[in-house]
Amino acid sequence: MEDINFWIGIIATMAFAVTGVLAIADRGVDIFGVLVLGLITAIGGGTIRDIILEAPPFWAENQIYVWLALGASVLTFFAESFFTQPQIYRWMLYIDGFGAALFAIQGADKAWGMDFGLPVAPVILGVITAIGGGLLRDILAGRKTLLMSHELYAIPVTLGCCAYVLVLNFIPQYAIEGSVLCMLGIFGLRAAAIYWDLRVPKMFITKTR
Amino acid sequence: MEDINFWIGIIATMAFAVTGVLAIADRGVDIFGVLVLGLITAIGGGTIRDIILEAPPFWAENQIYVWLALGASVLTFFAESFFTQPQIYRWMLYIDGFGAALFAIQGADKAWGMDFGLPVAPVILGVITAIGGGLLRDILAGRKTLLMSHELYAIPVTLGCCAYVLVLNFIPQYAIEGSVLCMLGIFGLRAAAIYWDLRVPKMFITKTR
Amino acid sequence: MEDINFWIGIIATMAFAVTGVLAIADRGVDIFGVLVLGLITAIGGGTIRDIILEAPPFWAENQIYVWLALGASVLTFFAESFFTQPQIYRWMLYIDGFGAALFAIQGADKAWGMDFGLPVAPVILGVITAIGGGLLRDILAGRKTLLMSHELYAIPVTLGCCAYVLVLNFIPQYAIEGSVLCMLGIFGLRAAAIYWDLRVPKMFITKTR
Repeated sequence: MEDINFWIGIIATMAFAVTGVLAIADRGVDIFGVLVLGLITAIGGGTIRDIILEAPPFWAENQIYVWLALGASVLTFFAESFFTQPQIYRWMLYIDGFGAALFAIQGADKAWGMDFGLPVAPVILGVITAIGGGLLRDILAGRKTLLMSHELYAIPVTLGCCAYVLVLNFIPQYAIEGSVLCMLGIFGLRAAAIYWDLRVPKMFITKTR
Repeated sequence: MEDINFWIGIIATMAFAVTGVLAIADRGVDIFGVLVLGLITAIGGGTIRDIILEAPPFWAENQIYVWLALGASVLTFFAESFFTQPQIYRWMLYIDGFGAALFAIQGADKAWGMDFGLPVAPVILGVITAIGGGLLRDILAGRKTLLMSHELYAIPVTLGCCAYVLVLNFIPQYAIEGSVLCMLGIFGLRAAAIYWDLRVPKMFITKTR
Repeated sequence: MEDINFWIGIIATMAFAVTGVLAIADRGVDIFGVLVLGLITAIGGGTIRDIILEAPPFWAENQIYVWLALGASVLTFFAESFFTQPQIYRWMLYIDGFGAALFAIQGADKAWGMDFGLPVAPVILGVITAIGGGLLRDILAGRKTLLMSHELYAIPVTLGCCAYVLVLNFIPQYAIEGSVLCMLGIFGLRAAAIYWDLRVPKMFITKTR
């Protein structure tokens, strides 16, 4: 289990770095900006979580995440035309969605394991782990953030974290099964949103003036 | 006293969430964005303060603040047309100003009580508590921040925190009276600014080029 | 040595505040905004570093940095026309580059001394110390950040931090000489970039679409 978790985390980190760089590549960013923004997309969310948890940042303990994020960012810089092929890019979006699902549940789990602000804080911290890095990247790159788009990205993440916290609270003996199911639930919703290009319905959006 | 403080804090939290959501509602934000931005406006400043103080975030210990901020945000989403009535909105601005006054003094007080970087840090942390959440919201929503407006909002807050730190330093036996007076002073200045639509005088603004 | 370090730090802090204020002065910022943005430019990077290191912020222990940054910011506000003279401004840029070099090596050194996430984290934290304050300022002021410009600012800083970490790792007996050399190397590259108006070569920049 631990092992699978580790390998999924590795893949998710790289996918976050790749999609993170692709998101800002059309703005004329230099190689340093690419490295920083790719790194922040990949490890920024977990870093904010750890700061709020008053824990040392996870990448200070296991630096493999930093190396992989930097490596994936450089690779994306030099192989941009490969990753922007529609077919490949679509694959990246699915892997990114899978990464978000994993990071969200891992984040909620870490907060729950530290007995931190139960039951609300684990949900908040799971969501931050999944989307915090992308928010930081968008702010630093001067892009509209996810919060102002109407993508179905954060909502599946939030629902999944809520469900996982309910599992941990009411049927803790099924924590492992629950974590897998919640992850799959998040990924399923996100994959459906990518596949059918679903967005937040208009009735849940404030009117622009 | 404790009790009054608690209830004022409750009201201020909700007012911050309401004005926080109203500030970005005209940009077409979905319900998730509304929840996050309302929550961040209400608890973001105190969270930054607690991170700098190396204290656990206040909302992890008492989750009522999170629930109220989320509740007020949802309510504002669905009852936007109620809150944007000029008369009601004006009331909200006054309550928001009152909340800022309370949060500022509470923030300065918390830093002082922890003996943290006296005497400068309590002023800085009081100001952060009052305006930090709004700054985060504006950054995430891609809005011009308070720092770039010429509103008389942060200046009363800063003066009030300075005055309170002087009280704590020179006449600590009047700490309670002083805190009430500083709060009223901040609120008075802010209310005057709302009522007469006062702004920072031109001579204190750099020339645009 | 300690003493020299302290005085260089003092000068660098003030230079950061001055250049920080000048960078946003053309946008019509009021005196409060000037104070906050000057302060954040000067002490923001070190504050982020200390938060990640779970150390108390350096300015809570020695408040001289806050006073100097505020003083330099007010001074810049009232004497803007002095500092914007081409000759003086150029001097400020050099001093700012020198400050960045010093802050970077100090930041890397602090992380290394705390045995924090060796060997990757000291590089990251050195870079954050040097450029974090400017990034925060630009975000709060709604300006394009350094990451999206093609200035040769962060790259010398990063190379210098990498070199310093190599020194600390392989020839720790030359730590002092190494720190001076790395600082001079960063400053040399930055000064060359200012003098010849060098920028990141086009081949290291993604294509805008």
